[in-house]
Amino acid sequence: MANGVTVAVVGATGAAGQTTLKILEERKFPVRELRAFASERSVGKTVTFAGESVKVQRVEAPAFKGVDIAICSAGTAQAREYAPMIARAGAIVVDKSNGWRMDPQVPLVVPEVNPHAVRAHHGIIASPNCTTIVAIMPLKPLHDAGRLRRVVATSYQSVSGAGVQGIEALREETLAWARGEAVTPKHFAHQIAFNLIPAIDTFTPDGYSGEERKLINETRKILEAPDLLIAPMTVRVPVFTCHSVALNVETDTKITAARARELFAAFPGLRVVDDPAAQQYPMPLTVEGQDDCVVGRVREDLSHPRGLSLWVVGDQLRKGAATNAVQIAELVLRS
Amino acid sequence: MANGVTVAVVGATGAAGQTTLKILEERKFPVRELRAFASERSVGKTVTFAGESVKVQRVEAPAFKGVDIAICSAGTAQAREYAPMIARAGAIVVDKSNGWRMDPQVPLVVPEVNPHAVRAHHGIIASPNCTTIVAIMPLKPLHDAGRLRRVVATSYQSVSGAGVQGIEALREETLAWARGEAVTPKHFAHQIAFNLIPAIDTFTPDGYSGEERKLINETRKILEAPDLLIAPMTVRVPVFTCHSVALNVETDTKITAARARELFAAFPGLRVVDDPAAQQYPMPLTVEGQDDCVVGRVREDLSHPRGLSLWVVGDQLRKGAATNAVQIAELVLRS
Repeated sequence: MANGVTVAVVGATGAAGQTTLKILEERKFPVRELRAFASERSVGKTVTFAGESVKVQRVEAPAFKGVDIAICSAGTAQAREYAPMIARAGAIVVDKSNGWRMDPQVPLVVPEVNPHAVRAHHGIIASPNCTTIVAIMPLKPLHDAGRLRRVVATSYQSVSGAGVQGIEALREETLAWARGEAVTPKHFAHQIAFNLIPAIDTFTPDGYSGEERKLINETRKILEAPDLLIAPMTVRVPVFTCHSVALNVETDTKITAARARELFAAFPGLRVVDDPAAQQYPMPLTVEGQDDCVVGRVREDLSHPRGLSLWVVGDQLRKGAATNAVQIAELVLRS
Repeated sequence: MANGVTVAVVGATGAAGQTTLKILEERKFPVRELRAFASERSVGKTVTFAGESVKVQRVEAPAFKGVDIAICSAGTAQAREYAPMIARAGAIVVDKSNGWRMDPQVPLVVPEVNPHAVRAHHGIIASPNCTTIVAIMPLKPLHDAGRLRRVVATSYQSVSGAGVQGIEALREETLAWARGEAVTPKHFAHQIAFNLIPAIDTFTPDGYSGEERKLINETRKILEAPDLLIAPMTVRVPVFTCHSVALNVETDTKITAARARELFAAFPGLRVVDDPAAQQYPMPLTVEGQDDCVVGRVREDLSHPRGLSLWVVGDQLRKGAATNAVQIAELVLRS
């Protein structure tokens, strides 16, 4: 791999795919050749990588011949179809969809949290849901230090989680409002501009959304803590690209707020901004564009002797998606 | 009182004061005479009540002679000064500020929750903080049915909670963004358009905000449950006028989701909108302008055998402020 590897980016024209191309450049991923793939209607378009135009190809087995690593940002249905085909063609697939995450044969990896898991792959490695990634960054050091028992996780999720169309919906709805026009919901079930939609993904009869289930199941799998108790609530908010999560956690061993801040500061990929009296805390607008997740509002829970409350913000397109996938690809190269 | 009562509205030019005037009309409060009061810089302006212009007066004891009920929407510092003066002038003061709520001599009242408390007043009755009011509406029937033990309350608070200036900040910042201009924060410590600010009110060294303390202390006082455990997190969101709260509750006695929905539906001032599979749930945009709080996303907590999770939305200017104050005034008239 002295001259680098051949990388395929699948879903290259979408929000996560575009960010993936940018992050491969930023992190100087050793790309010898880049191939871009997308759905039928984007075939023939071009994307830009390292200053050069790359033609978007159709997803077909022969086109993946010679690919070392494929980073896949397709939808769940497509990923279920594409990933095994691409893996059979000889590439290692890093898949960002919900299609493979809970497959027992597929490692689900956040490189700062469970890098060891990557080795067990059979050609496909999954990257978790964006909200799981942001939430798990501060949960991991707390789990290591005091063993997590229960987590109440309440999310504030940006529209970029719904891709380019989500971003356009907030933009266009807000511009219509600014022009004094009636606002027509564009992509979400309801208007998102100046509103909150307490529903992400489809629902099961027990009243939980797919997004909430992902938070439970993926967190347990990544932390290898099948009995961890999690009470999730996921909400879409009119913010462009960062997800925020309010976490209330109980640990087996008491962790003070001061100790928690030390643990967070020492954890790779996590930064602490926590001086609320000086108006310093993580916010979507200040975290946007950063690879690190940022944690603040750390305090001991007045309602539980071994409880902590905190607030974490992460760029959904970066650490929540593209950065994590590229980090997985880096792990693959090193292992 | 056959011909009605004389009502003073203090802070009549502010967001809550304006809504108070509207709600006195809507609810056909028996107003014989209405007097409007505001801070020095608004003296001489007029407000409209029942189609007539009312001149705004200076807050001075003689001006309250003959007033039966004064609804006070002033700031905390002014309310501490004004309320006793107005009460000495013979009026019963319904105060919406944070100045009197935790005074043991002052009842803190949500009419659907603790109407009996109003009788113990000594001239001043306090209306709770907006977030407390919205959260306590579904908490009360759960407390009566199963005794609340612990509540994790995570808020999504609209800019109207910061008054007219908060509303203008979100409006102006968003309009600047739409014009492609740089956005300058107008009223909050940071830009609120397309952002989240996880800090409301000032902070104590333990990391909690005044807003979070209010939620704890006021909820305990209203429910007469001094030992109730509450873990609060309050966040400002780019929404104009409704507050939303995600509640995770533990009760002494198990309450099923179905039973909780029955309890909510039977509780005055509360409506249930809860069919997420059909995209029906409470949202700020659909609750705006309503006096009722609306609850949905009711589900049994997968992480606790006697836990429930739910989502409640209330119009901050109405039930969160003006409607609750006018309802207290109605209670006073009836008692």
